[in-house]
Formats: sequence, structure tokens, C-alpha cells
Amino acid sequence: MNWTQEHLLGLEPYSAEEITRVLDVAEEFRPIVERNDLPRPALQGKVVVNLFFEPSTRTRMSFELAERRLGATVINFDVGVSSASKGETLVDTARNIAAMGIDAVVMRHGCSGAPQLLAKSIEASVVNAGDGQHEHPTQGLLDIFTIRQKLGRVAGLKVAIVGDVAHSRVARSNLYGLLKLGAEVWFVGPTTLVPKAFAKLGAHVCHDLDAVLPEMDVVNMLRVQTERLEEQPFPSVREYSRFFGLNSERMKRAKPDVLVMHPGPINRGVEIAPEVADGSRSVILEQVTNGVAVRMAVLELVTQAKKNL
Amino acid sequence: MNWTQEHLLGLEPYSAEEITRVLDVAEEFRPIVERNDLPRPALQGKVVVNLFFEPSTRTRMSFELAERRLGATVINFDVGVSSASKGETLVDTARNIAAMGIDAVVMRHGCSGAPQLLAKSIEASVVNAGDGQHEHPTQGLLDIFTIRQKLGRVAGLKVAIVGDVAHSRVARSNLYGLLKLGAEVWFVGPTTLVPKAFAKLGAHVCHDLDAVLPEMDVVNMLRVQTERLEEQPFPSVREYSRFFGLNSERMKRAKPDVLVMHPGPINRGVEIAPEVADGSRSVILEQVTNGVAVRMAVLELVTQAKKNL
Amino acid sequence: MNWTQEHLLGLEPYSAEEITRVLDVAEEFRPIVERNDLPRPALQGKVVVNLFFEPSTRTRMSFELAERRLGATVINFDVGVSSASKGETLVDTARNIAAMGIDAVVMRHGCSGAPQLLAKSIEASVVNAGDGQHEHPTQGLLDIFTIRQKLGRVAGLKVAIVGDVAHSRVARSNLYGLLKLGAEVWFVGPTTLVPKAFAKLGAHVCHDLDAVLPEMDVVNMLRVQTERLEEQPFPSVREYSRFFGLNSERMKRAKPDVLVMHPGPINRGVEIAPEVADGSRSVILEQVTNGVAVRMAVLELVTQAKKNL
Repeated sequence: MNWTQEHLLGLEPYSAEEITRVLDVAEEFRPIVERNDLPRPALQGKVVVNLFFEPSTRTRMSFELAERRLGATVINFDVGVSSASKGETLVDTARNIAAMGIDAVVMRHGCSGAPQLLAKSIEASVVNAGDGQHEHPTQGLLDIFTIRQKLGRVAGLKVAIVGDVAHSRVARSNLYGLLKLGAEVWFVGPTTLVPKAFAKLGAHVCHDLDAVLPEMDVVNMLRVQTERLEEQPFPSVREYSRFFGLNSERMKRAKPDVLVMHPGPINRGVEIAPEVADGSRSVILEQVTNGVAVRMAVLELVTQAKKNL
Repeated sequence: MNWTQEHLLGLEPYSAEEITRVLDVAEEFRPIVERNDLPRPALQGKVVVNLFFEPSTRTRMSFELAERRLGATVINFDVGVSSASKGETLVDTARNIAAMGIDAVVMRHGCSGAPQLLAKSIEASVVNAGDGQHEHPTQGLLDIFTIRQKLGRVAGLKVAIVGDVAHSRVARSNLYGLLKLGAEVWFVGPTTLVPKAFAKLGAHVCHDLDAVLPEMDVVNMLRVQTERLEEQPFPSVREYSRFFGLNSERMKRAKPDVLVMHPGPINRGVEIAPEVADGSRSVILEQVTNGVAVRMAVLELVTQAKKNL
Repeated sequence: MNWTQEHLLGLEPYSAEEITRVLDVAEEFRPIVERNDLPRPALQGKVVVNLFFEPSTRTRMSFELAERRLGATVINFDVGVSSASKGETLVDTARNIAAMGIDAVVMRHGCSGAPQLLAKSIEASVVNAGDGQHEHPTQGLLDIFTIRQKLGRVAGLKVAIVGDVAHSRVARSNLYGLLKLGAEVWFVGPTTLVPKAFAKLGAHVCHDLDAVLPEMDVVNMLRVQTERLEEQPFPSVREYSRFFGLNSERMKRAKPDVLVMHPGPINRGVEIAPEVADGSRSVILEQVTNGVAVRMAVLELVTQAKKNL
């Protein structure tokens, strides 16, 4: 297969073959991350800018580690103190950064579509690190990587994504990727957070976790964004937790080899009970490790595609 | 020519020969920046601290890229959260940083003269990245570099610098550098922003852009600092734009090969119209690329001077 | 001696032999820092995360320089914009960072004991860069290093630590280290800041600087934390300065070869007069230089211990 994608803007535009290729390359990087090995200098001499318009810790750090392990020159761009506040347009900011001579931009932005706009405006590779409520493709890839690693396959599996699906770019990227690789996806949560309309995207929509849990191979618990609770999508955290939180009592209804996932940061005792988060079926920390490997794979592939042009 | 300047505090203290030397060295670096080549390790093993007391995105990033391309060890010093707030004097902060074993400090500060004070207090090379309303010498150098690159010479050219000249360190550094290399400089803007007194520095002072535009070889449009408009230096942005904004209508009065420059970030539709900023005479993005090359040249020269002492 | 400490959580858990070993290794690094030499790549390929939950400039920069001189891959983790604010526990944050594949964490935290908790939760080496009012062990080590370097020994010396001992982690780390190496320690300050109870830790407690000054070999002046003055531990800064500030008049009572130290940043004219801070007996800037060397030694030792396990 000849890799031609210069960007990773979302999983929607990627083919099943391309997604699989990323997973395969990430598998080579996985032991490097685990053993803290010396970097493979695939990005030696290349400049990667981390352009984060929303605060982030773990995603930014995961990307930065991936970049440095590949030997890249890394520039972190703190947009809180930037000329964005001086009224410059996003495209002008992007063109300016590109004019300094860079190879790739990893971008997080509060507006859906911002990375697409960037990719049209500059010559460097663009990797979407989360845009509004649209996509978070490397999170989708690392979740799928973890599933394939643990269960040996993706096709035919049943995956529940539980919680605030409506506002979740993680849910969308998982959906696109999982469907392409042949899995079935259930969106599960209260009606306020899991709109019926999402069925059009190809997911099963369901408001009763207990009803679907016994059939699931994977349960991916989304974070309850407590900072958003003034919108009152459900009566109380306690109520949410009672119906959609994953605790050891509820786990008894699940398959014994179910995979418990969470994109982090977790709210212990809200969407996931401590004993489940730390339990034998949880792969939450392995998702984190895999995230670095997946991001290394993406960066290597998209920058090589750029070079081959 | 034997290079002896250990610092770059401004263009006023540099000779024409020294300015030309920086431009010549920058010319060697220019293709490296353009092609994203591997760094020339002239600063390998050297430590450069970016000490920014004012927020900055593009200048800080341009310096950081220049430093990394030269192989330097880069430390970014975020002064917002520093001991500056604990009542320590600037000189004490500087001496402390210097005592950690560093080779160069790139400094931006809101007070005119702060880099000079720093250079007297520590042994490392000091590069001024903008001090108050005094100088921004690397911006001056990159503007002059761009002029020489595009028009083949500097001597004898007529350069208009248009806008808030009174508060602009960019205008001052351009003036000093351009005069030394034999260009003529016009400061153009409303009387509130272009004081008559500036004629003493060697510039022509003029309040009518349309009158001088036809003769100019270069028009350098300063940013309207909208965050400062409560001072009311002119009745309204619309009024300013009508008299001093560069739009396609006004461009008809200019020479066909006039060079349009802007230090960025641009206010589209205020001091410069989108069609001019993106037009064929605009070299705004090339200024950005040249900025990295010029900063590489400055850093290499001043740190070598230090070593030769 | 076989080094087995994987962490540096404080000087209290270190033996005299271990402290001496750190000082000996730091002595090898000292000329490297002073001459700005090329790094010794003892941490080449290793990832160190600087995890600062409290703002810091000089300590963070000193650690970062130490890490880079050793060739480490450095990640700075700005906790102000982190998921700490999303309600994640410290242990979950730490486990997540550790899961990305890192070798050492340098941590500053407002809560005493936070680094101990971290060390129990993750496999990487943990170096305490200051925890609450508990310990700041690398500051203690660099102070003791400076004393040994200047006076040739530590055992038998009389060291006064003057000022806000009650709230000072610097005072505590100095005390533990100095006592283990055989020095005598005086805690000196107003009764509100130097509680009698501290005598139980092995220090002499004294409220009259002039009484003990003539006998001291070292005077370590703590910073008056003016930001904390609403608590009114003493009537006024002027009053404090009169009784506990080190000025040239008071210096006449001291031994001619007394060593004047300060952990910085200094308040000129409060706890120390400018002429004393800049005087011939002051080693304040040498403390700063030594700090980088000591931190290099600590990082090399604890990460090697990790590898040997």
C-alpha cells in the first residue's frame, strides 16, 4: 500500500486500509514506548509545532513525547498569550507559522473544522488533536489499537460508547473508525446526551446500559463533564451514576472478558467506580501508553507522504 | 571584517558594515529555513534563554526556531509566573539566570533600555527582541534583508513607514538600519502618531500618504494597535483606514514594482486591505521566513564574538 | 558504595554517606556548568517530566538545564492548565504521565508529602523540587555543597539559618543534611517564625541574631515572604530588618571569613542589605551555579539506581 495522506484531519476521510496501516506501524512503536527506548529518528531535522487553542495536558504531552521520540524539533505554541488575541485570523496565524519553515502542525481548536481550514492554508502536514465537537482522530485510533491488541481483532466486535455522546469528539472518531473496521457501535446514555439522530451515522442508539451491557465486548466510558452541568442534561451526578456509571455490581452483567476503556481524565465514582477503573478488565493506562505509539505512527506516515509529493 | 559585537541591543550602535555582515550571513541561512534542512550546529552545546517579559508569539517562535536550527539548547522563561512578581530586581533575575551557565539571552521587555541593563550585568550575549518603544533590531534587520533580497540593493531606495510611528520600536530600528545603508525614510501618518520631532532622527515626516506614495520603492505598513484606541489618536478606525490604509485603489498610485511590507500581525481591512496583503507586491510572508534566517545569523555572530574574547 | 536510592524525596531519608556521594558527583559536574561545556549524555534517550504544581522560575529552570546538559528529553508540564482542574486525583494524573513511558519526574507541589505519594504510585524516579512546608532537598544539597566547596568541610561548622524557619522547606532540608554531616545548626528569628518546638529536630533555637552571629561559620538568610505579611508575624518589615536583616554594620560582628548564603530571590534591604548581598563574603550566585551541578548529580544517580533494579 502506498501511503498518500498528508494530513490526519479525522477518521471519517480515512479508509479501512489506511486505519489498519496506522495500527500496524503503531505496533512497531509500542515496545519502544514501553521500554523507554532511544528514539527512531524518522523526524530528525523536522519541525513540529503543537498549536493548542484549548488547554490540554495529556494529549499535548502525548504528542510531544511522540514527536521527541521520533527526533523532531518541537515548538509549543501557547495560544493563550498569542496574537490570536490581537485580532489576527486563524489562517493568517497559520500562514505565518508555516512561513517560518515547519513540517507538521498538531492542532487542537474549539471550533469544528479548524484543522481542515489550516490544511487548506498551509503546506505542512496537519494532525487534528481535537476540533470542537467534531473529531479527535488519534484518540479514536488509540482506542481501536487497544481493542485490536487486547482482543486480537476489531471486526464483528460489539462496542458500547457510554455517556455524553452528543458533545463528544471522541465518540465520533471511535464510531467512524470502528465501523470502517467492521465493528458494531452502540451509543448509550440519557436521551439528552444521546440523540436518536445519531443512528443515522450508523450507530445503535440506546438509553439503557443494563440492557445492552451483557452483549458488549468493549465498554468505552466517556467522561461526565461536570464543568458543563449547569446545562442540566440530567438531574444529578448521583442519578447519572446510578443509571450509567460502571461499578462492580453492574460489571457482573458484562461478559467476563469485556474490555473497560476510558479516554481520561476519569471521575472516580461518577461514570466509573474506582474498583472498575483499577480492576482487571480495565485497559485505561494501556490506552495512554498506546496513545504515544499511535501518534508516532501518524506523524511518521503523514510527514513521509508530504516528502513523497 | 573581524566581528566584535557580543550583543545586539539595537541597530543604532551597529555600523553599516556590521549590518551588511548580518545580512550576508542570513543569506546563507535562508535556503536552510526554506527547505527545512538539518540544522547547522553552530550553537551545539550552547544554552540560549528566551526571556520574554511581554507576551509574544511570532517573535518568540521565530527565535526559538532559529536557536534550534543552530543546535542550541533552548530554555523558555515564562516571566508571567516568575520571581519578577516576588519583588526581585531585573538585574538580580538576570544574574541568577546567568549564574546557571548560559551563553545567550534573547530578551523582550516593556521598558526601553532593559536589554542594555542586562548586557552590563551578565557575561552572556544579549539579543534585544523588542524593548519598550525603543528598538526591535531583528525586525529591522529582517525588513532590510527582505528589501535587499527583492530589490537587489538598499542604498538610494525610498522607504515609507506608515502608521503609529510614535509608539513603534519597529519604525525606529528600520530607520537606524535603513539610513546607515543609504536609504531615505519617510514616516507617514496622522500628526498624533507621527510627531514633527522625528525629523531630527533623519526621517522625512509626512502626514499625507497619497502625496508620497508614487515615489516610494517600499511601503512598510505598521499595525494599528486597536487595543490602544481608547487614547483616541484618530477619530475612528474607518477614518484611519480611509487616509492611511493601503487598498487596491490606493495601490494604483504606487510604483508597479513597489514592495508592500508589514511586521504582522495584520489587521485586514484596517491598515491593509486583504487584496493588498495577499497581492503580488506583498512580501509579508517572506518577511517571516527571512526572520528566522536573520535571527540565526545574529545568534551565530554574537555568540562567536563572545567566544573570541 | 552501591547507590540504591531510586528517588530523592527529602534529605531526612538519606544517609550521610549518600549525601556525600551526591556532593562528590556534583563536584565532577561543577566545571561543566561553569564552562558551559557539552553535556555528558548520561540521560540520553531518557524522558524527564517537570511537574510543577506551584509556579517556579529558578528551580524549574535549574532542573531543566541540568536535564538538558545530561542529554535528557525534557517535558514541561504546566499544571495551571491541566486536568488537575478537571477533578482528576494526583495519583491518576501521575499514573497517566507514567504510562506514557517516562524515566523520572521532578515534582513541586503545595502539599507536603505529594512526591512520596507519587513515588508509591509510579515506577519512574521521583525528585522532590519542594513540597509544601516539608522539604526542598536539592536546595539543601546545593547549600551544603557550597559550604563544603568554600570552607573545605561541613563537620564541626556552625550554621545559622535566619528568618521564617516555620514555613521554610529550605530550612528543614538544610537541617537534615547539615546534622547528618556533623554541622551544628542554629534556627534564628522572631518567636513567631522560629518555634521552640524546632529544637526537637536537633537545631539550636535562638531569637537574637546578634548574640549568635560572632560564632557562626555560615549565615543562611531566608527570604521574607512579603506576600504573606497580612498574617503579621512581625510588626513591620523595617522592624524585622532592624533585628534580623544582615547589613554591613551587623557583619562587623561576624567572623571575617563567614559565608553569607541566601536561597533567592533576595529582598534587597529587607533580610539582606545590598552591600552584603554583593559583598566579598556572599556566595549567593555560586549557590545558583552549584544548583545545576547538584541537580545533574541527583538525576544521574537516581535514574541509574532505577536501571540497576
